[in-house]
Amino acid sequence: MRSTTGWQARGTTLHAVPIPRRDLRHDDIAVRVDFCGVCHTDLHAVRSHNGEDVLVPGHEFTGVVTEVGPDVTAFRAGDPVAVGNIVDSCGLCTMCAAGQENFCREFPTLTYGGTDRRDGTTTLGGFSREYVVRDRFAHPLPAGLDPAAAAPLMCAGITVWEPLRALGVGPGTRVAVAGLGGLGHLAVKFAAAMGAEVSVVSRSADRAGDAARLGAHDVVVSTDPDSTAAARDRFDVLINTIPVPHDLGPYLNLVAMDGTLSQVGYLGSLTVETMDLLLGRKKLTSGGSGGLAATAAMLEFSAAHGITADIELLPSGRVTEALDRLARGDVRYRFVLDLSDLG
Amino acid sequence: MRSTTGWQARGTTLHAVPIPRRDLRHDDIAVRVDFCGVCHTDLHAVRSHNGEDVLVPGHEFTGVVTEVGPDVTAFRAGDPVAVGNIVDSCGLCTMCAAGQENFCREFPTLTYGGTDRRDGTTTLGGFSREYVVRDRFAHPLPAGLDPAAAAPLMCAGITVWEPLRALGVGPGTRVAVAGLGGLGHLAVKFAAAMGAEVSVVSRSADRAGDAARLGAHDVVVSTDPDSTAAARDRFDVLINTIPVPHDLGPYLNLVAMDGTLSQVGYLGSLTVETMDLLLGRKKLTSGGSGGLAATAAMLEFSAAHGITADIELLPSGRVTEALDRLARGDVRYRFVLDLSDLG
Repeated sequence: MRSTTGWQARGTTLHAVPIPRRDLRHDDIAVRVDFCGVCHTDLHAVRSHNGEDVLVPGHEFTGVVTEVGPDVTAFRAGDPVAVGNIVDSCGLCTMCAAGQENFCREFPTLTYGGTDRRDGTTTLGGFSREYVVRDRFAHPLPAGLDPAAAAPLMCAGITVWEPLRALGVGPGTRVAVAGLGGLGHLAVKFAAAMGAEVSVVSRSADRAGDAARLGAHDVVVSTDPDSTAAARDRFDVLINTIPVPHDLGPYLNLVAMDGTLSQVGYLGSLTVETMDLLLGRKKLTSGGSGGLAATAAMLEFSAAHGITADIELLPSGRVTEALDRLARGDVRYRFVLDLSDLG
Repeated sequence: MRSTTGWQARGTTLHAVPIPRRDLRHDDIAVRVDFCGVCHTDLHAVRSHNGEDVLVPGHEFTGVVTEVGPDVTAFRAGDPVAVGNIVDSCGLCTMCAAGQENFCREFPTLTYGGTDRRDGTTTLGGFSREYVVRDRFAHPLPAGLDPAAAAPLMCAGITVWEPLRALGVGPGTRVAVAGLGGLGHLAVKFAAAMGAEVSVVSRSADRAGDAARLGAHDVVVSTDPDSTAAARDRFDVLINTIPVPHDLGPYLNLVAMDGTLSQVGYLGSLTVETMDLLLGRKKLTSGGSGGLAATAAMLEFSAAHGITADIELLPSGRVTEALDRLARGDVRYRFVLDLSDLG
């Protein structure tokens, strides 16, 4: 058994402690974790932690390969890599066969808080200095992408990439992005780079400058009835990144006939009024995470278009501050932890 | 003011009484109503009637033009016609301009229980011997369609036609129809005629014979775990006609990746679990009614393929019996009232 240092939850605070990593299997690689983004999921996991399970958060990270198992051919020590929020799947079901390991019928193995498919242990995440991962679930980090700013691509990025691609966003598509946080700001960058006409839906007109800088054409101010009335039935696709339960009606009103609202991230039950869908045959869908092929395509696209997250980089020792500020929405637009302070 | 006889609700029972019809406007036609289908909406309207408003149900009917206003060129006295559940719209909004009068931003005028856009009176429905309607909202009834069996096309038919067409159903599409009632049996006929591979989802295997006769390939028995497991992720489109609120999860499980569940009819709030949509990027939408162009296309398609409803024809004097039996689900597959007993 290997050992490294990770930020483990005790109650609802995090502490740097030794944590185990498995010895390399024939198809494993060991990764020195350099940078790990801080996701709303991490915040939720820590705040709702019951203390029973071992919890080390973190599921969007970049680093460098330090060692490879005997059957690994795709990586060598020294390669820059990126890992997202799933680290294994059954590999046999129709979803895995379709390259959608994130929809694995047996449920994919999550990067932390999951159950390893071979030894049954609980997976421990990327808020740590080393991670051991099955080679198929690591991606080469393309040259030219800053490894710190690229880390959030692996969860926030792929989560918005999948619906944009699945819904056929391209030149001429009218896309709205509701919520300008970690996911939202990447959705704006991707959609703009895909050639879409992008608008940001925000509670405040204050975001107009940021929205424009990210590539948006304009801002729909959700608290301004004139602004929302002017944008009624306007968008083919609305990516809703607002991370708390809320009335979807006002957002569906912005969707064009036969258009789609994709609620990204996990909000539990979604309730929608029939008439909000019916009057315009609007569609509601949900997205989160992505398959391996889509993740590789997203990284390639990001490299080609120079897209990374806008981040605030903190030493991992300030992880508690990052979570507190994330809870208050005080981040533009993603915290990334620098794990080098763990040695 | 003209007068005719209609079945008016007093409390929750219906009585034949004289009811007014407006004098013909320049673009009106008068229709002798021969046959009117009995819809779940009628049942709901009568059962929830508070006695304050005048209620004459009925919004899918066929008949013969008896008189036309001076500006009417599309119809002449003697023409067979069909009318559905909307009889006017603003005509100016983007939805009307797109030929989707059923999604009119000012809300379309309903065939009964609506408010006439010009004189403000409450519209009275097709459970009556005469209806006066703006010419644009009446359709020529194609030759070859039995007028009694064609009446349900105008609500039940167009309500399932719209999602089938909007979702691109055609040869090779795998379509499921949940619920084999008035709407469901027409959905099976239409989808089969469009070339789709159609399955019926029913609580009981007893419906297999009926399903096959209507054009379905097989039946998924929703109460049989083996049957539903075998059909998991199978259908590109699922038309859900079940007319009461229920858990959508088991039905979404039958939908393929990137497929769509269309809940037709009005069920109020719909609640769906994020994971039921997320695992497969499945979409939820809703449908009801249709625009004028789609209704005309549906009638043309029905005539070309010889599609009408399977009906049980009753004299309108037995309307109470029809509603009672509809409430118990005792109908294969649509009641149609013969209004000739009103004189």
